[in-house]
Amino acid sequence: MPSPFKYQRLAQEGQARRGIFSTPHGNINMPAFAPVGTQATVKTLTPDELRLIGSDLILSNTYHLYLRPGADRIASFGGLHGFMNWDGPILTDSGGFQVFSLNDLRKVDDEGVTFKSHIDGSYHRFTPEKVMQIEAKLGADIIMALDECPDPLNRAYNEEALARTHAWAVRCAENQVRPHEQALFGIVQGGIFEDLRLESAAFLSKLDLPGYAVGGLAVGETKSQMYATLDVVMPALPTDRPRYLMGVGAPDDIVEAVARGIDMFDCVLPTRIARNGAIFTRHGRINLRNARFADDHGPLEQGCTCYTCQRFTAGYVHHLIKTKEILGMRLTTLHNLHFLEQLMHDIREHIVLGDFYTFKERFLDDYLARKTL
Amino acid sequence: MPSPFKYQRLAQEGQARRGIFSTPHGNINMPAFAPVGTQATVKTLTPDELRLIGSDLILSNTYHLYLRPGADRIASFGGLHGFMNWDGPILTDSGGFQVFSLNDLRKVDDEGVTFKSHIDGSYHRFTPEKVMQIEAKLGADIIMALDECPDPLNRAYNEEALARTHAWAVRCAENQVRPHEQALFGIVQGGIFEDLRLESAAFLSKLDLPGYAVGGLAVGETKSQMYATLDVVMPALPTDRPRYLMGVGAPDDIVEAVARGIDMFDCVLPTRIARNGAIFTRHGRINLRNARFADDHGPLEQGCTCYTCQRFTAGYVHHLIKTKEILGMRLTTLHNLHFLEQLMHDIREHIVLGDFYTFKERFLDDYLARKTL
Repeated sequence: MPSPFKYQRLAQEGQARRGIFSTPHGNINMPAFAPVGTQATVKTLTPDELRLIGSDLILSNTYHLYLRPGADRIASFGGLHGFMNWDGPILTDSGGFQVFSLNDLRKVDDEGVTFKSHIDGSYHRFTPEKVMQIEAKLGADIIMALDECPDPLNRAYNEEALARTHAWAVRCAENQVRPHEQALFGIVQGGIFEDLRLESAAFLSKLDLPGYAVGGLAVGETKSQMYATLDVVMPALPTDRPRYLMGVGAPDDIVEAVARGIDMFDCVLPTRIARNGAIFTRHGRINLRNARFADDHGPLEQGCTCYTCQRFTAGYVHHLIKTKEILGMRLTTLHNLHFLEQLMHDIREHIVLGDFYTFKERFLDDYLARKTL
Repeated sequence: MPSPFKYQRLAQEGQARRGIFSTPHGNINMPAFAPVGTQATVKTLTPDELRLIGSDLILSNTYHLYLRPGADRIASFGGLHGFMNWDGPILTDSGGFQVFSLNDLRKVDDEGVTFKSHIDGSYHRFTPEKVMQIEAKLGADIIMALDECPDPLNRAYNEEALARTHAWAVRCAENQVRPHEQALFGIVQGGIFEDLRLESAAFLSKLDLPGYAVGGLAVGETKSQMYATLDVVMPALPTDRPRYLMGVGAPDDIVEAVARGIDMFDCVLPTRIARNGAIFTRHGRINLRNARFADDHGPLEQGCTCYTCQRFTAGYVHHLIKTKEILGMRLTTLHNLHFLEQLMHDIREHIVLGDFYTFKERFLDDYLARKTL
């Protein structure tokens, strides 16, 4: 049976790649940004709205769904696709990041990790084999291997964790339940340490997985440390597979990472800041709670074609945010996801045109100038 | 200049009336239910969604909008219609109910009422003249006269308050700012006391206003006291004007009130209970938080044609409600407003067919039996 997963490179400029990754639930145009639907819903939005925005891929969190409503239950609804009524590609993480970031009481050993539920305090255990079973039940198109996520600046911990992450990746690959329906991605770890990152990229590349992620970034290191790490890692990863930078969604980080060869992103940033009134604009991030928007009769952003900007004024959305109305959170979420989808569209277009790096400099000049602040 | 406000009776069966009330922003099919958009938004929904549900009229609250974002500001956005981007009919209440129900520190005299803001504790004063100015700035199609809202069971207070409510209605009528663009409705008060209600209906009828409301019900009296009060009041109100029962939205109360000649309703009930997971069904009210819905692969209600029931399972919405996801509140709100709009549609149809009272008994049998509980 031929694999339904294939990365097709359509154009390349420098390290920046424009490609398509095919999955059983459709193609993902890359570089792609995946909105995060932690609990089987991209917060505030319907799947119909995500389709209108143009999202090709959404991410959901294994840790949360395993705890509630449970993987068997989701399987009984036809997996995540049926449960949340989204028929496009889905990616599930392994739960590793949540176990290591949300849980003070986790206990890790070479076999797996024991942790306490943030909901009811009950104890649970993830092993690579168990996570493969859970992710099979959730039924995403792309599933992530279980990894350990250490502080990126702590060398000793990174050395110790890397050995486990690699061993767990092997066990995930050997115990994958539905390899012809789900693409297993490995996760390169190693913190900010060049030799560890290179060791990790080399080890995982040998597993010949359908895709690779760079994990453990955007969690405490500086932006320049993140970019430097990508400079080291990216040349060491296979070029015929999608390369995914996990947990990154700031517009400036996206263009910098694409310039280094990244094909996929996910992040809670656009949806999380939206619910607090903050929006992306071409001229930087602004917060609609600011009193200067109270009498603003224009759209959130001049020239924006999103649903929110086409129908409502900044003054009205300011009012909704100030009064904590749910519609305000919906409208800012729509704007931010539209902004990132438009950015990914522009990135793809400029790679094909061959002027991506010019576009990148112009975009960063505008975005980082914060002219409207 | 001919008035843009006209109540046209299309059919009548017993006291139940099917009619159309015309306003500058379109016709309202009656009997009508108006969703409540307290802060210039029907909580969780866009105006586009309200149009799809089929709402002809929405209500917004003068008290809240006067305090935030302010009537002058809303006027600068083209009134409520422009501010919230709803081009259909709007009704604003007078703020009287909020002043008398939310404010412990109100002080009423014959001239007006002084109250403390629930937002910042600042003091404000409403007089009939001031409320007419505020409602003119908000720009609704139907505006309510300032009234005093006493405990419906307290006779002495009702006697005292009724004199003020009547004097204020006269001052509202004499000081209306835009009588050719806004229909001023008077509010019959008098608690559960027959003689006071009849006195109020007679007094206000003489003012020859374009519509009349029955106020001060559904705030502490029993359902049978409410129905008995309508039995007394309705025959005393003009038949060529719309008659509006304020603050009532329970499905059983709606059919009982229509049977007594009511043409309009508003209530926060369908939207408020929705955000807590409770939904209307033909077989009574149920709460989706109940664990029995966790594995329910069917829609919220069999046969329902709402957006939610067409696309999502009860099990999924149960999960969203349990995890406090905003999408869950949106989906239950859509279902409840669709349910009431469908009920109003059925009511109108059966009045025209001449079998409304049969429909009413059948509906109440099903709704009050709570067969699914």
